[in-house]
Amino acid sequence: MTDEQTKELLCELLRVFYDKGWVSGTGGGICGPTEDGNMFLAPTGVHKERIQPPDFFVISPQDCSVVREPETPDLRPSECNPIFSAAWRARDARSVMHSHALSSVLAADLAGDDDHLAVAGLEMLKGIRALTNRDTHLIPVIRNTPRESELTDQVEKALADDRFASAFCILVADHGAYIWGGDVWECKRHAEVYHFLFEAAVARRR
Amino acid sequence: MTDEQTKELLCELLRVFYDKGWVSGTGGGICGPTEDGNMFLAPTGVHKERIQPPDFFVISPQDCSVVREPETPDLRPSECNPIFSAAWRARDARSVMHSHALSSVLAADLAGDDDHLAVAGLEMLKGIRALTNRDTHLIPVIRNTPRESELTDQVEKALADDRFASAFCILVADHGAYIWGGDVWECKRHAEVYHFLFEAAVARRR
Amino acid sequence: MTDEQTKELLCELLRVFYDKGWVSGTGGGICGPTEDGNMFLAPTGVHKERIQPPDFFVISPQDCSVVREPETPDLRPSECNPIFSAAWRARDARSVMHSHALSSVLAADLAGDDDHLAVAGLEMLKGIRALTNRDTHLIPVIRNTPRESELTDQVEKALADDRFASAFCILVADHGAYIWGGDVWECKRHAEVYHFLFEAAVARRR
Amino acid sequence: MTDEQTKELLCELLRVFYDKGWVSGTGGGICGPTEDGNMFLAPTGVHKERIQPPDFFVISPQDCSVVREPETPDLRPSECNPIFSAAWRARDARSVMHSHALSSVLAADLAGDDDHLAVAGLEMLKGIRALTNRDTHLIPVIRNTPRESELTDQVEKALADDRFASAFCILVADHGAYIWGGDVWECKRHAEVYHFLFEAAVARRR
Repeated sequence: MTDEQTKELLCELLRVFYDKGWVSGTGGGICGPTEDGNMFLAPTGVHKERIQPPDFFVISPQDCSVVREPETPDLRPSECNPIFSAAWRARDARSVMHSHALSSVLAADLAGDDDHLAVAGLEMLKGIRALTNRDTHLIPVIRNTPRESELTDQVEKALADDRFASAFCILVADHGAYIWGGDVWECKRHAEVYHFLFEAAVARRR
Repeated sequence: MTDEQTKELLCELLRVFYDKGWVSGTGGGICGPTEDGNMFLAPTGVHKERIQPPDFFVISPQDCSVVREPETPDLRPSECNPIFSAAWRARDARSVMHSHALSSVLAADLAGDDDHLAVAGLEMLKGIRALTNRDTHLIPVIRNTPRESELTDQVEKALADDRFASAFCILVADHGAYIWGGDVWECKRHAEVYHFLFEAAVARRR
Repeated sequence: MTDEQTKELLCELLRVFYDKGWVSGTGGGICGPTEDGNMFLAPTGVHKERIQPPDFFVISPQDCSVVREPETPDLRPSECNPIFSAAWRARDARSVMHSHALSSVLAADLAGDDDHLAVAGLEMLKGIRALTNRDTHLIPVIRNTPRESELTDQVEKALADDRFASAFCILVADHGAYIWGGDVWECKRHAEVYHFLFEAAVARRR
Repeated sequence: MTDEQTKELLCELLRVFYDKGWVSGTGGGICGPTEDGNMFLAPTGVHKERIQPPDFFVISPQDCSVVREPETPDLRPSECNPIFSAAWRARDARSVMHSHALSSVLAADLAGDDDHLAVAGLEMLKGIRALTNRDTHLIPVIRNTPRESELTDQVEKALADDRFASAFCILVADHGAYIWGGDVWECKRHAEVYHFLFEAAVARRR
């Protein structure tokens, strides 16, 4: 994909995610790869379904620095920057979405004081790379912090935890989820699968 | 924003709100600022998702008087007029939306006989101007009256109540919500955030 | 409205109702007035959201006879014909919609063995012609029959029952609802209001 | 219908089903008839709402062999192939859709250890070919297997079971549903009716 195609697709996915209620009230976010090995990052504090291609920052996922400012003036990079970059480095996540879906909050509630949510008995698990429908899949659940950037320590710990080696998602209690893939299309597929798992877990617990 | 852009945006937001189920059956409403310091107000008794730019009244928020009739004949100004104007004067609310969402009714139910609903433990609280995710946010809940204009006394009392100084929303039991912002975009953001809070509060109470 | 405009609007409303889940699986229906005092009636057995203006029958609401066949060949008139015509004659209902919404089925369930559902304590009641938000509104609930045309006796009895004089809706247990208005726009408004009442009644009973 | 029309319609229905949440995360599938008596089959592992007419395989439903590769390179035929073909042969199902809807999973949960779900007391049953609203309709529920192709034995057994002679649907526990019709339009109608039955059964059991 060219850089233009990637930015167009990221904008389209934000509109799809908005329609599903996963990014609202300016919350949520997304990133994807540039052709030269950096990261397109959506800005913060804007209505995500209205983001246009000239609004993206180019970020170095190695040190979270801004490589190129957006063409649109007066934007600030998303606070997801350090978390997206951590997933990029630890898991080759070339695309990450940040969800504020109610189902992600309610799914994290199910974990109580545990540090993970276990999901099993669902064909949709196959939609996650390398999983089978016989797996019991552990999704890490971390605690929310006052600032999004302060989540990074817990995110890095979860990414390094062997129990969560097969996870492409981290739930943040009272907050939402980070979901990633090796490219933008896998990120979209995983986003749809994990939100299905959240909804199924909540509905079955009732 | 020019007056034309403001009216176009207000019409678009009414369509967005209709798709979400927040304004239906001709219920609900919206207002936004004119360039000369007055208020565009949607008409009453019409299907809100079908309102067009020539349908707006211009109102003086100082005394609720009609400054300019809509180009479209035979319309009456929304009964929200005195309430929107009260929020304009007390809180510099240049844009207010009135929701008839079921989630707002069910959220007000949760308050029982209390005069407020307390919401805490949600990242989405950050979507409200000046709040943090550690705050316990109090949303005033007032009682419904036979006519919408009769709500004004309770609305003004809630707007003057120090406990609700950080709120950009008033719930009306059995009825809906008024949600505002400093401009139309903040009103949209707050509308999305507060409806998320309503849905989360209802889902967590189950 | 011209006949062409009426047919266009009826088609559009069927698409809106389909998106809301009120007419699906070819179920549901709608009618509206012709300029010469007869009734446009949608055909049966077709996907309602795909109906086009040439698909409508013209029916005499006095005796349910077909005044004019649709331009599109091989269609049969909706089984709603006698019920729509009964509402037309008894209540001057120039437009009636037939809903198969799940919320209408669940609302009728709430009535149990009673012959009505009572709804109170909701501002949305004002969206029904001549009601206030202080009214306790009685919606008749009739029993389902093997064929839709066999519902007509019960429908006529409900339409003649003084307790239901203010109702613009009849619920059919295990089936759905008939909702009407003096014209197509009032029918749309009433459809949106009654479905809100169904959803609110179901949610509050939980 | 010409082959081109059939492929266009199958693509459109996948978009409709995606909007309803029935095919997501690349899950789900669909097939329809070619003019020469074979079967158009959607590819596996792609986002179903984005499938285009050149993406379809032509399959012989007699032996599941690929008669014609898609114009688009590098696609693999859906794993639904043997199941769709089994329904084609046993029931003259010229069109089958495979749903991953949450409501289908929750409906299958209701069956517990039984091999079927019984649905009764719903007008919508009439939307299934040859049923009346007085029928108690038995929907077979089979157990999930590691690979979709391994479901075929259970599917063929259910198709041959006299108790399920009137069913156009097989539920797969923890997985979803296969729903078919004599042509694409009947498949769409049955898909909408069965998903309504799933939702109604789940809501009424609460």
